[in-house]
Amino acid sequence: MSIDVANIAKLSDGGSSEPQIQGRLDVCRKWGIPEGSKVLEIGCGQGDCTLVIAYVVGDQGHVTAIDPAPLDYGAPMTLGEAQDRLKQCHIGDRITFHQSNLEAFLASSASESLYDYAVFAHSIWYLPSAGVLQEMLAALQGRTKHLLIAEYSLNIRGDMAALPHMLAAISQAEFNSRDDALDRNDNIQTIMSPQTITQLASQTGWTLQNEEIVDSPEKKEDGKWEVSRVLSKAYRARSGSSGDAARQAFANDLIFAVEESMRALEPSQVPRTLPTWIGSWV
Amino acid sequence: MSIDVANIAKLSDGGSSEPQIQGRLDVCRKWGIPEGSKVLEIGCGQGDCTLVIAYVVGDQGHVTAIDPAPLDYGAPMTLGEAQDRLKQCHIGDRITFHQSNLEAFLASSASESLYDYAVFAHSIWYLPSAGVLQEMLAALQGRTKHLLIAEYSLNIRGDMAALPHMLAAISQAEFNSRDDALDRNDNIQTIMSPQTITQLASQTGWTLQNEEIVDSPEKKEDGKWEVSRVLSKAYRARSGSSGDAARQAFANDLIFAVEESMRALEPSQVPRTLPTWIGSWV
Repeated sequence: MSIDVANIAKLSDGGSSEPQIQGRLDVCRKWGIPEGSKVLEIGCGQGDCTLVIAYVVGDQGHVTAIDPAPLDYGAPMTLGEAQDRLKQCHIGDRITFHQSNLEAFLASSASESLYDYAVFAHSIWYLPSAGVLQEMLAALQGRTKHLLIAEYSLNIRGDMAALPHMLAAISQAEFNSRDDALDRNDNIQTIMSPQTITQLASQTGWTLQNEEIVDSPEKKEDGKWEVSRVLSKAYRARSGSSGDAARQAFANDLIFAVEESMRALEPSQVPRTLPTWIGSWV
Repeated sequence: MSIDVANIAKLSDGGSSEPQIQGRLDVCRKWGIPEGSKVLEIGCGQGDCTLVIAYVVGDQGHVTAIDPAPLDYGAPMTLGEAQDRLKQCHIGDRITFHQSNLEAFLASSASESLYDYAVFAHSIWYLPSAGVLQEMLAALQGRTKHLLIAEYSLNIRGDMAALPHMLAAISQAEFNSRDDALDRNDNIQTIMSPQTITQLASQTGWTLQNEEIVDSPEKKEDGKWEVSRVLSKAYRARSGSSGDAARQAFANDLIFAVEESMRALEPSQVPRTLPTWIGSWV
């Protein structure tokens, strides 16, 4: 564990695991966010990445972190509890949380007129559609100097242990692409690809400066979490609610494919978290 | 190349490639269809497997091969042309082709009252739905001593080169699971899993005797064909016709995932064909 991860883990006080912190820090380092930056983080959730950004920007920097989810959302800790806890740590004053969607926030007096960086850190697959992302990217024009995005890639790069996470993502996205089926408890609503995101950014006037793929730390738990969700009894029951037989069969067979991909691993092996694609735009 | 493959290739006279013949023969050998058997093959298409079965059952055996598709279906050779050609070879009299669906055929005077084996050789993913398979399996009760099924499995068993075929199958099945989107030119209409098929067989009174997974011959072309189809301009254009934005985005991102999985291969590498799951029931 690096000194930075140890320091952030201490600040987080058990709120995030070390592999989670390591993964966020790897991404922030690649982005090269300099000390003193004013950052707007969109879709911060419980604040895993918020804390890492706050650490990286240093004493003179600040991160404004927004999320529209209700503060009583989430378990075992709610969003509000997790955010309050981060505010208590000794760099908590570098962070401001707002319960808001992007459009309302930018129109409010709480927003700066211009940020150095706007950040989407694993929040895009949680959006309901590409159209929503497109509107957000358009709204950010003129409000930030740089746009930074990190999202999982469906490219497993030869690592069979990441296949279950990939198929679990496809399964959740299939469910949430149904007209009336949106389940906000899924971490994955869409599987927008790097190509789709790049296209939307270009359409809204952003110029790509850099992109690359970063492997996830070996023990980052997201792959395991998403696979457990798809293989749970509750998920099967919920997924089985489609009235359309053809679509239902397709959904069932995706769940079976996740099962098969798990069988291909060693019994002691846990599913690997997908690599993260990162990009920066001006 | 084994003597058997060489012999069958000579009979096929260029109609099927050697890896195709090898793949069919591997499956027939695993099923252990004995000489002298009377076989009913369901969904024979151009007759690739029909010829192999005719070879395996010998002089005293016979294969009745049915397919409901119009005889002018298929390119560059139509179904009718391909079947006529097989009838001309020196074991052609071991084969009878009927343009018919299963229910109509079993009710007709052309059908035996009892076959030794009823065979689905890679014809199940071509069915429009699990419900249709269920009716077929029920209709076969009392009309065959054994039921034999071979279909691709979504289990790539650690072979990254098979991932593009797997994702191309998921993409085609996604398209064809849409209400009004069925395209009979896709080789893949559904991705019914071994679990789904086993369940349907059990529900219709069949008892599983044996199942196993057989790797495809290295050069069997199906993986390459299905990937080329999904990455073609025509497929993208057709796939883009969904009126539903969320579903459309999901479909696009599946195509991107196929592209990504191809990029992970060596430039000279062709996609590997998925393994085949085979089962036998009484």
